[in-house]
Amino acid sequence: MITDVRFEDEANVIRKVCRDFCRKEIEVSALELDAHYDLEKLRGILVRSVELEILTMLIPEEYGGVGSSVLAAAQVLDELAYGCAGVATIFAYHLAALVALIEGGKEELLKELSAADSPQPTMLTLAGPDMEEREDAPQLVEAKNGLMLKGVIPLVASASLADRMVVFVREADAGLTQVLVDPRAKGVSVQPDEELLGLHTVPFADVVFDGCLVGDADLVGERGKAEQAYKKARAALNVFVAAIAMGTSRLAYSRAYDYAQQRWQFGRMLVDHDEIRRMLANMVTKISMGTAGYSQALKVDGTGTVSSWRSDLAKIFCTDAALEIAVDAIQIFGGHGYMKEQGLEKIMRDAKMLQVLPESNRYMEVQLFGAKG
Amino acid sequence: MITDVRFEDEANVIRKVCRDFCRKEIEVSALELDAHYDLEKLRGILVRSVELEILTMLIPEEYGGVGSSVLAAAQVLDELAYGCAGVATIFAYHLAALVALIEGGKEELLKELSAADSPQPTMLTLAGPDMEEREDAPQLVEAKNGLMLKGVIPLVASASLADRMVVFVREADAGLTQVLVDPRAKGVSVQPDEELLGLHTVPFADVVFDGCLVGDADLVGERGKAEQAYKKARAALNVFVAAIAMGTSRLAYSRAYDYAQQRWQFGRMLVDHDEIRRMLANMVTKISMGTAGYSQALKVDGTGTVSSWRSDLAKIFCTDAALEIAVDAIQIFGGHGYMKEQGLEKIMRDAKMLQVLPESNRYMEVQLFGAKG
Repeated sequence: MITDVRFEDEANVIRKVCRDFCRKEIEVSALELDAHYDLEKLRGILVRSVELEILTMLIPEEYGGVGSSVLAAAQVLDELAYGCAGVATIFAYHLAALVALIEGGKEELLKELSAADSPQPTMLTLAGPDMEEREDAPQLVEAKNGLMLKGVIPLVASASLADRMVVFVREADAGLTQVLVDPRAKGVSVQPDEELLGLHTVPFADVVFDGCLVGDADLVGERGKAEQAYKKARAALNVFVAAIAMGTSRLAYSRAYDYAQQRWQFGRMLVDHDEIRRMLANMVTKISMGTAGYSQALKVDGTGTVSSWRSDLAKIFCTDAALEIAVDAIQIFGGHGYMKEQGLEKIMRDAKMLQVLPESNRYMEVQLFGAKG
Repeated sequence: MITDVRFEDEANVIRKVCRDFCRKEIEVSALELDAHYDLEKLRGILVRSVELEILTMLIPEEYGGVGSSVLAAAQVLDELAYGCAGVATIFAYHLAALVALIEGGKEELLKELSAADSPQPTMLTLAGPDMEEREDAPQLVEAKNGLMLKGVIPLVASASLADRMVVFVREADAGLTQVLVDPRAKGVSVQPDEELLGLHTVPFADVVFDGCLVGDADLVGERGKAEQAYKKARAALNVFVAAIAMGTSRLAYSRAYDYAQQRWQFGRMLVDHDEIRRMLANMVTKISMGTAGYSQALKVDGTGTVSSWRSDLAKIFCTDAALEIAVDAIQIFGGHGYMKEQGLEKIMRDAKMLQVLPESNRYMEVQLFGAKG
């Protein structure tokens, strides 16, 4: 009997702790936060996560962090997403931003983040260059008193929640630059949160830069030299989103599995119908392959570096699978699957969003084979 | 650009050697052997494989073998299947039979197999208890001069090629027993090879046992105590079939990829059409996930033991994916894809067969959730 499709090869303490945290803090609030976005409640979960050191787990030990691998972080997010894909997504953007700061060598900030004993943890988010070539894409403009940021980034995750934004600015003549922005600074305005189909726990909003000053201290690494940091952060984010998709899929599967064991239909238990068994097997196959796939994207060269195209593939597969699994779970529940209180329709809405974070799967597929031109 | 979807984490010498062997010995004969089964030619390939020690790779070093892991064997089969899924399947049944013999502690035979300096290597095959409850399923019958084997096993792989068969006999009162059978012994008759859609290189035939004597030396392990050996051999075979499916998929993908780079269609190269790029991305996604999945099935507990249900899932996913990938490759080739000389229709036929080896995927899915009842 397949009841736990997680991989136990790296059964580290932090994952078990996260599982408990997920049960106690996230699962109980997931449906409520989905129905009514509640900044205070959400902040409460983030504050209570400080003890688990999730927010600093990727920071190297020499800077006071936990020094975990990207794989360990992905596994933690997989655990958290079993409670709520939205809450896990907030952590994912924070951790991906950390990858960028670590690669950019932002030592002081990393030390500051690990040392923070404030009751409110510092939340980060990551905002990349938009895939479309927009006219209002952010630019760094030379001004009298230094560089200024101008332009718009649409639909930034955690925009109204983050204390710092890691923004990547692509300029035709200067390459890619990594900039640290305080969303409350002058010249930055976070627009009202958008209403979206899923991931209601994550506040998505456009961020408008209108002459926000960028000092030397705000540049992460050298101007125009952030290509590598972006690539790493983006690959990590892809794997994180894949892991979240698998965590939320495990929830859908285990709910459907339990239901099939309890529900009598056409003269026998649901699980005794071959069609239902095949659906369950299909779910568990996708979870098993997807989990192996995102783990492998992190293990390929043995150093834990994220493979860029393998992380793309894992993200595409896992998020597509999550939506299919959620749809199947609803099917197994029949009419009950549509009820909000069952939590399955939330998973379906969340999975649909995961398919387009940080980019649409279908666009990513085309891009994968676009390099040759 | 994604040109090689293999995982390079275990870039051991044997895989590189196998790749060369595959190019030189298997690829050149694959289409010919598919069109005309040629026992001599096939034996030639097997003889020349002796140098590579593939046939003894799983035998522990203390018995004179190479002592490789099941994962290394799967990776070798993945390489060989890039040349021909059929040739790789013959090796897979041989290696799975070895797993059964090793678990059963058949020391003398293992030593004999590793020491063999005959110009003709000893080929093994594995025949399990049939999934259907057939009336003529093999039984061990007590006779005057010892035990006798009676019954039929349908469609045994490599039946007319194997020098020894590892046969598992399930008896209602005595459990599962592992028996070593010489297909040329008195009381055994290998029926004529069946004509099948795919895997033409593998001779499949019914084997009829009509009072074949089973001495003490032919029992592998104790009578009725072979459950564990069967489970291990079956799990290994599943992973081997999964690996073969991925190897043949890589061939289909790389052929389709090359074709898309060369073929002009509707005013641009095939690869410049988004639909074609998405198909290629979809192929490579399945290969990446499936390869990670079958590897993970072997790594879960860190000891290289095969996880039974994870190997089932890997086999289901990889063989289903192989058929889908072959169909897509043919689609990319258009009308040319149907031509025998392109080799793609062979891959499609082979993949369809892999879906039912050693059991049908759809049946396996139902069984996965059948244990509870």
